[in-house]
Amino acid sequence: MQIQLVAIGKILSPFTQPVGTPIQPAFAGGAPGQVVVNADFEAGLDSIEGFERVWLIYLLDRITTTQLRVTPYRDTRERGVFATRAPCRPNAIGMSSVRLSKREGNVLHVMDVDVLDETPLLDIKPYVPQYDAYLGSKAGWVDSSSVNRTVADGRFHGTTEPPAIDKESSSPTNP
Amino acid sequence: MQIQLVAIGKILSPFTQPVGTPIQPAFAGGAPGQVVVNADFEAGLDSIEGFERVWLIYLLDRITTTQLRVTPYRDTRERGVFATRAPCRPNAIGMSSVRLSKREGNVLHVMDVDVLDETPLLDIKPYVPQYDAYLGSKAGWVDSSSVNRTVADGRFHGTTEPPAIDKESSSPTNP
Repeated sequence: MQIQLVAIGKILSPFTQPVGTPIQPAFAGGAPGQVVVNADFEAGLDSIEGFERVWLIYLLDRITTTQLRVTPYRDTRERGVFATRAPCRPNAIGMSSVRLSKREGNVLHVMDVDVLDETPLLDIKPYVPQYDAYLGSKAGWVDSSSVNRTVADGRFHGTTEPPAIDKESSSPTNP
Repeated sequence: MQIQLVAIGKILSPFTQPVGTPIQPAFAGGAPGQVVVNADFEAGLDSIEGFERVWLIYLLDRITTTQLRVTPYRDTRERGVFATRAPCRPNAIGMSSVRLSKREGNVLHVMDVDVLDETPLLDIKPYVPQYDAYLGSKAGWVDSSSVNRTVADGRFHGTTEPPAIDKESSSPTNP
């Protein structure tokens, strides 16, 4: 079964290469971005202004290989890729809950962006706590890991850059 | 830009038609399902057992039309589709945070399923509260709506069935 999708726009961000890009919105320190929706789809944004957060669903288009077992950014041992948020997935779909600052026509100004610049956008959904927020949900290896890395290195992108030197964010001791 | 994805498995559920299917996991009353991952991808499930919830990313394959403006199940007026969780999206991608009961090899037994039987699976991600849970996030029209419908009718699926008669769940008064 082949599934065809189309880019409905793109995500602009300060991050032009994987190394140093935040690995989750929660670690992005408010990083700003713009979600530019193709004019054809602008009407689909009506009423989005009232939401504090939105889910961006996008294509991880800088990923060129799939790995079923990975050592995730926040751990020291291998896990199945579906037990991680690593980008090298069989279908390279990413999702990020970003903060919505403002809408201007077909552009959403957002914060907490953890996405590479010019990432193809697939969907936007409103963040609804009643549907999405499970505060006490147990999180397996993430709960017990002591690796508190917050930015990407080149491990999933086949880059030759060495891991970013960032002692604070890659230190193996939790705060 | 054309984007090609593949089904990595399927989701089995008690729901064989849209009418009467829960519209969100939060309204599914524990409904059970199985996530059957193709054997090729089974290694990707390792370490998933420790997570209480997982995100299922899937293709809304019973949707045949896109609408940019919709009257969502939980409201009485039209909204842009990206400000709703309605299924008739330009890219028919659904996401549901379901409860994980047990893994048996390539099969995840899950609860709170709001997905139609035999839905093509695109991805599984672990639910991590630190990344996903924003309990007090403002939710625009959802916060102010008094429509508390919990199950689908035929409005997005071009079915000729009348809306399910379910006074309790479609009543316009909140508890």
